[in-house]
Amino acid sequence: MAPAGEKKGILERLDAGEIVIGDGGFVFALEKRGYVKAGPWTPEAAAEHPEAVRQLHREFLRAGSNVMQTFTFYASDDKLENRGHTQQFTGQQINEAACDLAREVANEGDALVAGGVSQTPSYLSCKSEDEVKAIFKKQLNVFVSKNVDFLIAEYFEHVEEAEWAVQVLKTTEKPVAATLCIGPEGDLNGVSPGDCAVRLVKAGAQIVGVNCHFDPETCVKTVKLMKEGVEKAGLKAHYMSQPLAYHTPDCNCQGFIDLPEFPFSLEPRILTRWDMQKYAREAYAAGIRYIGGCCGFEPYHIRALSEELATERGFLPAGSEKHGNWGSGLEMHTKPWVRARARRDYWEKLKPASGRPFCPSMAKPDGWGVTKGHDDLMQQKEATSQEQLKALFEKANKDH
Amino acid sequence: MAPAGEKKGILERLDAGEIVIGDGGFVFALEKRGYVKAGPWTPEAAAEHPEAVRQLHREFLRAGSNVMQTFTFYASDDKLENRGHTQQFTGQQINEAACDLAREVANEGDALVAGGVSQTPSYLSCKSEDEVKAIFKKQLNVFVSKNVDFLIAEYFEHVEEAEWAVQVLKTTEKPVAATLCIGPEGDLNGVSPGDCAVRLVKAGAQIVGVNCHFDPETCVKTVKLMKEGVEKAGLKAHYMSQPLAYHTPDCNCQGFIDLPEFPFSLEPRILTRWDMQKYAREAYAAGIRYIGGCCGFEPYHIRALSEELATERGFLPAGSEKHGNWGSGLEMHTKPWVRARARRDYWEKLKPASGRPFCPSMAKPDGWGVTKGHDDLMQQKEATSQEQLKALFEKANKDH
Amino acid sequence: MAPAGEKKGILERLDAGEIVIGDGGFVFALEKRGYVKAGPWTPEAAAEHPEAVRQLHREFLRAGSNVMQTFTFYASDDKLENRGHTQQFTGQQINEAACDLAREVANEGDALVAGGVSQTPSYLSCKSEDEVKAIFKKQLNVFVSKNVDFLIAEYFEHVEEAEWAVQVLKTTEKPVAATLCIGPEGDLNGVSPGDCAVRLVKAGAQIVGVNCHFDPETCVKTVKLMKEGVEKAGLKAHYMSQPLAYHTPDCNCQGFIDLPEFPFSLEPRILTRWDMQKYAREAYAAGIRYIGGCCGFEPYHIRALSEELATERGFLPAGSEKHGNWGSGLEMHTKPWVRARARRDYWEKLKPASGRPFCPSMAKPDGWGVTKGHDDLMQQKEATSQEQLKALFEKANKDH
Amino acid sequence: MAPAGEKKGILERLDAGEIVIGDGGFVFALEKRGYVKAGPWTPEAAAEHPEAVRQLHREFLRAGSNVMQTFTFYASDDKLENRGHTQQFTGQQINEAACDLAREVANEGDALVAGGVSQTPSYLSCKSEDEVKAIFKKQLNVFVSKNVDFLIAEYFEHVEEAEWAVQVLKTTEKPVAATLCIGPEGDLNGVSPGDCAVRLVKAGAQIVGVNCHFDPETCVKTVKLMKEGVEKAGLKAHYMSQPLAYHTPDCNCQGFIDLPEFPFSLEPRILTRWDMQKYAREAYAAGIRYIGGCCGFEPYHIRALSEELATERGFLPAGSEKHGNWGSGLEMHTKPWVRARARRDYWEKLKPASGRPFCPSMAKPDGWGVTKGHDDLMQQKEATSQEQLKALFEKANKDH
Repeated sequence: MAPAGEKKGILERLDAGEIVIGDGGFVFALEKRGYVKAGPWTPEAAAEHPEAVRQLHREFLRAGSNVMQTFTFYASDDKLENRGHTQQFTGQQINEAACDLAREVANEGDALVAGGVSQTPSYLSCKSEDEVKAIFKKQLNVFVSKNVDFLIAEYFEHVEEAEWAVQVLKTTEKPVAATLCIGPEGDLNGVSPGDCAVRLVKAGAQIVGVNCHFDPETCVKTVKLMKEGVEKAGLKAHYMSQPLAYHTPDCNCQGFIDLPEFPFSLEPRILTRWDMQKYAREAYAAGIRYIGGCCGFEPYHIRALSEELATERGFLPAGSEKHGNWGSGLEMHTKPWVRARARRDYWEKLKPASGRPFCPSMAKPDGWGVTKGHDDLMQQKEATSQEQLKALFEKANKDH
Repeated sequence: MAPAGEKKGILERLDAGEIVIGDGGFVFALEKRGYVKAGPWTPEAAAEHPEAVRQLHREFLRAGSNVMQTFTFYASDDKLENRGHTQQFTGQQINEAACDLAREVANEGDALVAGGVSQTPSYLSCKSEDEVKAIFKKQLNVFVSKNVDFLIAEYFEHVEEAEWAVQVLKTTEKPVAATLCIGPEGDLNGVSPGDCAVRLVKAGAQIVGVNCHFDPETCVKTVKLMKEGVEKAGLKAHYMSQPLAYHTPDCNCQGFIDLPEFPFSLEPRILTRWDMQKYAREAYAAGIRYIGGCCGFEPYHIRALSEELATERGFLPAGSEKHGNWGSGLEMHTKPWVRARARRDYWEKLKPASGRPFCPSMAKPDGWGVTKGHDDLMQQKEATSQEQLKALFEKANKDH
Repeated sequence: MAPAGEKKGILERLDAGEIVIGDGGFVFALEKRGYVKAGPWTPEAAAEHPEAVRQLHREFLRAGSNVMQTFTFYASDDKLENRGHTQQFTGQQINEAACDLAREVANEGDALVAGGVSQTPSYLSCKSEDEVKAIFKKQLNVFVSKNVDFLIAEYFEHVEEAEWAVQVLKTTEKPVAATLCIGPEGDLNGVSPGDCAVRLVKAGAQIVGVNCHFDPETCVKTVKLMKEGVEKAGLKAHYMSQPLAYHTPDCNCQGFIDLPEFPFSLEPRILTRWDMQKYAREAYAAGIRYIGGCCGFEPYHIRALSEELATERGFLPAGSEKHGNWGSGLEMHTKPWVRARARRDYWEKLKPASGRPFCPSMAKPDGWGVTKGHDDLMQQKEATSQEQLKALFEKANKDH
Repeated sequence: MAPAGEKKGILERLDAGEIVIGDGGFVFALEKRGYVKAGPWTPEAAAEHPEAVRQLHREFLRAGSNVMQTFTFYASDDKLENRGHTQQFTGQQINEAACDLAREVANEGDALVAGGVSQTPSYLSCKSEDEVKAIFKKQLNVFVSKNVDFLIAEYFEHVEEAEWAVQVLKTTEKPVAATLCIGPEGDLNGVSPGDCAVRLVKAGAQIVGVNCHFDPETCVKTVKLMKEGVEKAGLKAHYMSQPLAYHTPDCNCQGFIDLPEFPFSLEPRILTRWDMQKYAREAYAAGIRYIGGCCGFEPYHIRALSEELATERGFLPAGSEKHGNWGSGLEMHTKPWVRARARRDYWEKLKPASGRPFCPSMAKPDGWGVTKGHDDLMQQKEATSQEQLKALFEKANKDH
C-alpha cells in the first residue's frame, strides 16, 4: 500500500492534461443496497455498516475511479441532528469513519481521497456566515486530521454558500474543487453559471463545475457556460462534472427533485452504459477533465466512462476484465440474433423501449415557480391541459 | 451463529404456511458491480472476489431473504469450459467457494442455503441423459459435501432437462425445488405450464414454479397455470416464483433474451419498488409462498417484497430501518410538493415517465419463430410496418 | 344516368370473385363537417343539409367505393324520438331523402345503393321481437319504395337482434348483408364470432362480417373467425369488413366506446393511408371481398383501399388522379430530404410520432366488466396502478 | 345575397375590437377529400370540382368563419406551370373560379372575401424583384376585377418576398394582411419575428402575423414576438395567426415540412377540438384578434375557436347546433361511464393515447442545418444516438 503522498496530486494530474475519473453517487447506490434512508439521505452507514461502504468504494475503484470521495454527504452536524438520525454515532465518528474507508480503498489503487462538504440546513434557515462557516470548519477538521488529498465543496444550490465553503476549505493548503447543483439557468437566485464559476474561482477553487440535479447532457452544457464565463473573465480553472444517471429533459431549474418520480420511481430514466459513453465523449470534447457521476451512477456507469476514454487515458480499468467492449461479450451467444448485437452500431442506434405503454415519456415537474418568487405555482395548479403544461415546461427550460 | 440444522427447513416452513422470501439475481447485480461478464454470465467471482459476493448475500439477507442461493449459476463444468473462462479456478473451487459464502451469510440471520443447478450446454448440444446427469451430479457432490439445506434446479427451458436434474438431486435426502424459465405458452417444446409442473412433481420436486425470462405479472400467471395443472392431476406441491425485475409485456415465448434491449439497454424497463409490492401481493394471492426474484432484482426490490408481506410474516426486515413505508421518509422534506409524495396513493397511481421522448414504449422481439421451427423469422424480417409487427407480437403472446 | 338495374348486383359481383369497395363512416365524417351531433349521432342531415351528404357520397365514389350506403344509421323512429331530435323532418322523410341522395350519386358511377338498418333502442329496452321487427319494417318500406339495390343490417352488438333484422329484410327479394360490431370475443352475450356468423347465414344473410368498434386488424381477425365458423358448419357466405379508422389495441370487448378518448379525442389514433393499404391487403388475404370502412374513414382512407387493390381490381379510382402512388407526389419537392420520402419503403417503415410527449401510448378502457355481469367494474375503479390496469386490460383482451 | 359593400370591412371589425375567425386550410382538407394532389398542392379544383370547394367554404362558414379566403394558394402562374399541372384550366380561370366560389358562399353569411397570394418559385430561383412582383400583379388583377374585400399575402419563408407582395397588393385601396410561415427563430435568413413584423407594417400591411408550419402554441408565441417588435418600433398593427392543426414540439426552424411524418403520416399529431379551444384562448389573451387556421384544420376545429370565444363574440356559429358544449352531447348516453365524459374538466385533463405503442412521441426533423448554411446536416447524418439527436433538436429549437 502506497502512502497517499507518493501519488500524483489532483492538480498535478489536471495540469498535466490527464483525465480524472470521479466516482458515483453513494447515497442513491447505498439506498438501493439498504444502508441509506431516502429522505434524510445521511451517511451514518460509514460508521454503522463499513463493509457496505468499503465494498462500494472498491467497485468504483475497479471501474476506474481516480477519486474516492469520503462518504460525508449531508454529514454536517446541523443536518445529522435535524433529520432524526438515531445518533448511535456522532457526526465526528461518521466523518472519521468515512475518511478511513476512502483511504483504505484508495490505497488499493491509483486513487486519491477527497473530503467533501455540501450545503447545510443552516444556510437555508438564514443563519449567519459565521455560523455556516463553523459547520464546514468542523467537517474540515476531520479531513485535515485524516489527511485527505484534496477537498470538494459540492451540491450547493446557492453560489454564496459555496463561496463560504470554499473560503473555509482554502484555510488549508489542499486543492479545492467546487460544484453547484445547477443547470443552465444558474443558481436559485438566478446567478448565471458563468458568474457562479467566476465567483468560485475568485474564492479560491482550482476546479469548478456541477454535480447532481440534471442529466449528463444538461450538466455538460452548464459547465460549458461556466468555462465561457471564467475565460471571459480572464481567469483559469479546471472543470468537472458529476451529473445524475437519470434522463431529465423535462426538469425545471431545480432539477430532478421536482420531477414527480423523485426519488422512488426514477427507474425508467436510468441511463444505459452507452448513454454514459456518450456523456464521457461530450464532456471530454467540452474541455472537462474531471469526469464523474452523482445520484444513480452505479459502478458499471463509471466503468463506461473509463472505457470510452481508454485511448486517451492509455488503459482500461480493472473492471473491464468483466466487460466486452460495445457488447462483444455476446459474440459467442447461441442465438444468431443475439450475437448480432455484439457491435457498437447496434447499441448506439437502439432506442430502448420502456415496456410501460401506459406511461408518458415526459413528466411535468411539481412546484414550478416557487423559487421564482411569483405566481407561477398557482398558475401551474390550474394548468391542467397538455398545452399549458408544455408552455410552463418550456418556460422553465428555456435553455433546452 | 446458529448451525443450519437448528433452523426450520424449507419444507417445514412452507408446510406451516409461512412465506419464504427468496433472494435476487446475482449475475445481473454483479455484472453492474463489475464482477460478472455479460455473455458468459459465469460465477467465477465466488472464488475470485468473494468479498463482492458476500456483500451481495448480506444485502439480500438484510432485505429479508430467507434463502441464500449458492452463486453457482452456469457453474457446471461444461459451461465454464465452453465460455472462455480463464480457469484460474476450477469448477469445483468455484462451487465450493459459493457454498461457503452462502453459508457464512445465512448463518448471520434466518436464512437457509440452497444449492442450485441450471440448464447445461450439454443438453442443448443433444448429449445423452447420462452425460447430462453426470454434469449435475458433479455440482451436487459439492452441495452434499458442503451440506446445503436444500436444492434448486432452476432456469430450464426444456422440462425434460429439468426432470433429469430433479432426478439427480433426488438421489439425496434434501428437499428439491424446480423452476423453469417459461411463460404461459410453456416450455420450448410447447409443453404447457400445467404439464411441466406435473412432470416435475412426479420427478420428485416438492416445490415447483418459474424463474427469470419474464416480468412478475407473467410469472405469476404462469405459476397459476402450473398450480391448476398439479391440482387437476390430484398432486400436491408448493409454488415458487422468481421473475425478472424488468417489464416485459412485449416478449415472445423465449422471454427477455429476444428483446432488442437485452442485456445492455434494459434500464427503462426496471421495476420500481412499488411495482414489486404489487408483485408480492399478487403472488401471495395466487397461493405462491416462495416469492423471490431473478435478473434485475436488487436488494431494495427484495425488501419491497418483505415490506408488502410484513403483516403476513409478522415482521419487517432489517433493511427497513433505512426505508420509510410508502415514501414516508419524505415527510420532513423542505418542499411541500415533495412532502406530498409521502403517501401510498401517490406512488401507486404514478405512471413514471421515461425522460426518453424518442423511444417507443414497446419493442418487437428479435428472432421470433426460430424455435417454432417454421418460416416466421423470414416473415418477421419482412414485416416492417407497425401493424405487421403487432400481428406477430400478438401471435407470439397469445396469452397476454 | 343509368338505372340501377343495368349494373351488376352485389351478389353477381361477389360470386364472380370481384372486390367490392365499401364507403366510409358518415356520422363521424359529417360530425367533423358540422352536420351530425355527437351523442345522438342521428342522420337528419340527409333532409336538412342534402348538399353536405351528397358531397360526401361523391367523395367516396371518387375514392373508389362501389356502394353508397343510405345515410340512415340510427334513423329508426324509436331512435330519432328518443334522442331529442328537433323533428323538423319525420323519420320517413329522412330515410327517403337519404335514399335519393345515395341513388343520385350512385348513378354517377359504378356504385350500388344499399339500404341500412342498425340496432335499436327498442331491443336494448327489451321490447318484444314483434315490436323490434316493426321498427325495421318501417325503414324497409322506404328502401323498397325507393328500390335500393341491396340491404345491410349493421352495427349490432347482439346477434339475436341482427337475426331479427335479417329476417325482416329477407321478406324482400333483395340481397342482405349483416355485420355485427363485435371483436374476437364475440357479441355482448358471449356468442362467438363463428356462431354469430352461422346464425346470420341461417337467418338468410348472403354476406356476413363486422363493422365499427375495432381497428382493421381486429376486424379482419374477427371475420376470419366468422369464416371458420361458417365453413365448419358446411355453409357458404361472402365476407365483409368495415372497421374503424382508429388504432384500438387497448380496447375491451365493447370496442372504442369504452376508450377514454371516445368520441372527442380520438385524433392520435387515426390510421394513415399506409395503415389502410395494409388493412386492404390483409382483408383480401383473409378472403374478405367486401372491404370498406366505418367511423373515422375519410375519402382518402377509402382511396387507399382502392389503390392497394388496384391490380386485383384492374383500375385506379378517379380520386387517384390527385394522389401519387406511395408518396410519389413528392418527387419534385425542392428539398432533397423530402424527395427522399417519395418511396414505399419510407412510408411502410415509418413509425409516426405523436408530438405528444405527455401522453401515453395505450389507454385503459372505462367501464370494463359491466357487460360481463360481475364485479369487475368495482375492481377496476380500485385498480389504480399500472400493473393492475395491465392485468385488467389483458383479461379484457385475451384474444389480442 | 348582400353585396360585399354592405358588410363591415375587415379593418372596421378589427378597429372596433371584434374577433375575426378565419377559415381552415384548403389544400390539406381537399387532399383528404380527393381534390388536391400532395406534392404540387395546387388549387385547380376551384375550376375542376367547384362543388367540392364550395362545400368546404360552406362548412367553414357554418363553423363561424368571417373570412372566405379564395382558394388560390400556389395559384401563381410560375407555380402552376412548374408543377406538372395538366393545364385544363389557365391560371386566370382558376383564380377567377376561386373568387366566385368564395364570394358565393360569403354572401350566404357574415363573411368577407380575401384574395390570397403566397410565395413563388420565382423568388426561390432568384428572379428579380420586378419579375416576382409581376407574378403577384397577375393574381391581383383577378382579385380586383372580382372585387374581393381584402387581400392576404401568406406563407412566406422570407420577409423580403412578403414585403414585395405587400407592396404590390398596396397598389390597390384594399386592406392588406401579411403572414409569414415562421417560428420564433424568424425567417429563413434569420430575420427575427419582431423585425419581420416591423418591415411588413412599414411596407403597408395593416394586419401581420404567421400562418402554417407550426402548431398553435408556437404560432402564438411567434406573433407575440412580432407584436413586441411592432410596439417597440412605435408602430401599430392588427395581429393574426393561422397555425397548423398538428402538434409540432419537435420541429426545427423550417417547421413541419422537415418532420419525417410530413405530409402523409401526420395523423397522430392532429389537434383535438379541446386543443383548439386552448389555442383560441391563448391567441385572444395575446392580443391576436384575427384567429384562424391552416393545414390540418377541419371545420370542427374552426367551430371550436368560435365556441371558445362565443362569449366575447356574443354568439355561437350555426354549426354549433350540432355540437354540445364541452361534450354535453353525451349526457344521454346509455353507459354511465360515457355520460361521465359530458364535462369540461374531463376533456381538458385527458391526455389522449395514440394506440401506437411501437411509435415514439417525438421525431427528429430531417434536413436540419441546410438553411443554416453550415455542416450540421452532415453532423446530423452521423448523429445516430438518442443523445446526439436530442442535442441537435434542442439546438434547433432553442426558443422552445
